[in-house]
Amino acid sequence: MNFGVVGYKGRMGTLIVQTFKEHKHNPVLLVDKEVLLEKDRPEVIVDFSQPEALELTLSLCEKYNVPLVLGTTALAKNHFKTLKDFSKKQPVVQSYNFSIGINLIAKILAEFSKNFEEWDVELVEIHHSQKKDKPSGTAILLEKALKREIQKHSLRIGGIPGEHLVIFANEGETITISHRAISRKAFALGALKAAEWVLTRKSGFYTFSDVLKEE
Amino acid sequence: MNFGVVGYKGRMGTLIVQTFKEHKHNPVLLVDKEVLLEKDRPEVIVDFSQPEALELTLSLCEKYNVPLVLGTTALAKNHFKTLKDFSKKQPVVQSYNFSIGINLIAKILAEFSKNFEEWDVELVEIHHSQKKDKPSGTAILLEKALKREIQKHSLRIGGIPGEHLVIFANEGETITISHRAISRKAFALGALKAAEWVLTRKSGFYTFSDVLKEE
Amino acid sequence: MNFGVVGYKGRMGTLIVQTFKEHKHNPVLLVDKEVLLEKDRPEVIVDFSQPEALELTLSLCEKYNVPLVLGTTALAKNHFKTLKDFSKKQPVVQSYNFSIGINLIAKILAEFSKNFEEWDVELVEIHHSQKKDKPSGTAILLEKALKREIQKHSLRIGGIPGEHLVIFANEGETITISHRAISRKAFALGALKAAEWVLTRKSGFYTFSDVLKEE
Amino acid sequence: MNFGVVGYKGRMGTLIVQTFKEHKHNPVLLVDKEVLLEKDRPEVIVDFSQPEALELTLSLCEKYNVPLVLGTTALAKNHFKTLKDFSKKQPVVQSYNFSIGINLIAKILAEFSKNFEEWDVELVEIHHSQKKDKPSGTAILLEKALKREIQKHSLRIGGIPGEHLVIFANEGETITISHRAISRKAFALGALKAAEWVLTRKSGFYTFSDVLKEE
Repeated sequence: MNFGVVGYKGRMGTLIVQTFKEHKHNPVLLVDKEVLLEKDRPEVIVDFSQPEALELTLSLCEKYNVPLVLGTTALAKNHFKTLKDFSKKQPVVQSYNFSIGINLIAKILAEFSKNFEEWDVELVEIHHSQKKDKPSGTAILLEKALKREIQKHSLRIGGIPGEHLVIFANEGETITISHRAISRKAFALGALKAAEWVLTRKSGFYTFSDVLKEE
Repeated sequence: MNFGVVGYKGRMGTLIVQTFKEHKHNPVLLVDKEVLLEKDRPEVIVDFSQPEALELTLSLCEKYNVPLVLGTTALAKNHFKTLKDFSKKQPVVQSYNFSIGINLIAKILAEFSKNFEEWDVELVEIHHSQKKDKPSGTAILLEKALKREIQKHSLRIGGIPGEHLVIFANEGETITISHRAISRKAFALGALKAAEWVLTRKSGFYTFSDVLKEE
Repeated sequence: MNFGVVGYKGRMGTLIVQTFKEHKHNPVLLVDKEVLLEKDRPEVIVDFSQPEALELTLSLCEKYNVPLVLGTTALAKNHFKTLKDFSKKQPVVQSYNFSIGINLIAKILAEFSKNFEEWDVELVEIHHSQKKDKPSGTAILLEKALKREIQKHSLRIGGIPGEHLVIFANEGETITISHRAISRKAFALGALKAAEWVLTRKSGFYTFSDVLKEE
Repeated sequence: MNFGVVGYKGRMGTLIVQTFKEHKHNPVLLVDKEVLLEKDRPEVIVDFSQPEALELTLSLCEKYNVPLVLGTTALAKNHFKTLKDFSKKQPVVQSYNFSIGINLIAKILAEFSKNFEEWDVELVEIHHSQKKDKPSGTAILLEKALKREIQKHSLRIGGIPGEHLVIFANEGETITISHRAISRKAFALGALKAAEWVLTRKSGFYTFSDVLKEE
């Protein structure tokens, strides 16, 4: 596919361009603070940058009449309103977590929450020492998926990108479901999956778990 | 419930009586090589002993017209034939693995096998050094659940009751689903679940995964 | 060796007799609330029972003039005084933790504490849901071995006999040193090691880490 | 310190410059295929590039009369000869593995190999699916440290940078010592440690484990 990236000079933007190219897709529109390459019509635009970029991003989506994959965090209410308006014309995939693995585990926990009702469960999450929030947003996401309150233990050590362990036990056995991010590459692969999926959709507002649901 | 146990002096039999009692059930029929206690009509009979005991077990089931939970291994074809005949009158739950956790993981792997198709996967199983077969039957069961061939690594060290790890990875992340038996108690709890479930069933031949499926 | 066990009917006592016999040692003195078997002179007496038994235990050690291996917990000051008096005549090994593995890990942490100074470190310990103290005594023991304050996370789930993970991380890598008790058998093997070691010692008061130190 | 890097445009070279700068050291000599920056006298030169670069590297070390930290792999016999000649004038630290953690674990295993003699042990190593050699060189290094033959299991999945688990077990307990590379950063930090250490040394030929030994 021909794709566009907003914020392509940032850490995630660079990685997204690289990852999409590895899968034989062509960057035809590259935007950072301004449009820097515009050599063809993109089929989809991907933005994992800052909320301030959203206006420019949406104007480009409208110009080309193409779908949007949005991984920008810290969106405000009015951003969501604008996104939902645009999603009447073109499909939008918005999520705060584009890791395929975490969304897959959340799906497993949600679907099997009843089976795990009789088990004790606690959660351990490990992140680098610079991460200040405890517990991680992902820990809360997994807790919600399981539909019960879990005791959550947060370790902050070294340079660990992110690890989550959901540990179940009864009298006679334990089950552990764990996820580890090797690198930010995980999120770039999630963006790729979303971009490929959104091409096949009609207008509408979707999250990353919708992408996985319909695989 | 009032229950009966065949082979109640053996390691598993002892544990089954103890576990059922902890859950307020009453042993009313205790059989080892012969009937040793028969103080009331059982509602269900449990047998985790030897294939040679099956004839006596079934004659007791017929005498009381009650269901059977059977965890005996190394059954032959003719045993299955007899069991299926009896299952026309009363429900039978037969399985080589009454661990709730392993059956739950198998169910998860089966249901999500499509989601894991794009991930690399290998399996590690660790058992005590006396276990001779490699890979474990459970490893094969998990592989079948995942519906693809997996490379399986078997460690045989110390007194480990049994541990299985299914490790998935793609470029950017890993997911591990692992199970550990703490002790044989796991299997006694599985027998309990099967016994409680079978009371609510009509005649028929069931496996332990049917028990879990309908929870 | 010929050995004696005080409290041989208890859970640990039974296991000690069984474990020592597996290693070709002979029980010649079996004591529970009273002396129940006394068929020969023991070379060592082992007691993992109650503080109240200590008086009888010591009188038997004096009678035969043999060393003592003591795993009884909750000893009071006066017990220690009596033990130290006796240790002038015969060697005594006393410890609250006869797990070879935990003592080995403590020794590793103590010896390498300087190497780990630049690493972040936190500890996770997992025990069965009935265990009320947090953190475990073993967690504190490991922290002391490392000679620095560690954040300790305590999980209480299911029937887990005991698991400790010391997790180190710097910017680029992690090291985990972990221990898991499979069963109480660990402690019986520790008692065996102490008993075999104490036979070679002169009088004196020793702990289990002395036993491991001189291997 | 003022430092020089040969091969500074490569993946490891870039990372080394960045890591040293984070620790307040100044790059004053940057060399790739030719000298590209030479603004001051370096106190040490670091080379993690190709064997072909060694000649230029050594000529620069001689020009400034400064020590060398060398992480280049696939060195031939004559390279070692030249290095040892140079090490009579200035100290050289040469190693195929500059991970602090792996060298630390090797040191632990070597020092405690006697304590582990009675334990069963096997090794599991997990690397990305592009890695072709099995078992990893590091697995062999750890086996040598332990001074006994170990069964080694090699998993090749996804993008895992490198994970090694040495799993010990006896009848009653398990001990696992494991290492995980988060990223190549581990090796850059090892180079930094070697560079800081080598400044304090007289002439001589050293390996990375010497660096750790004398901390």
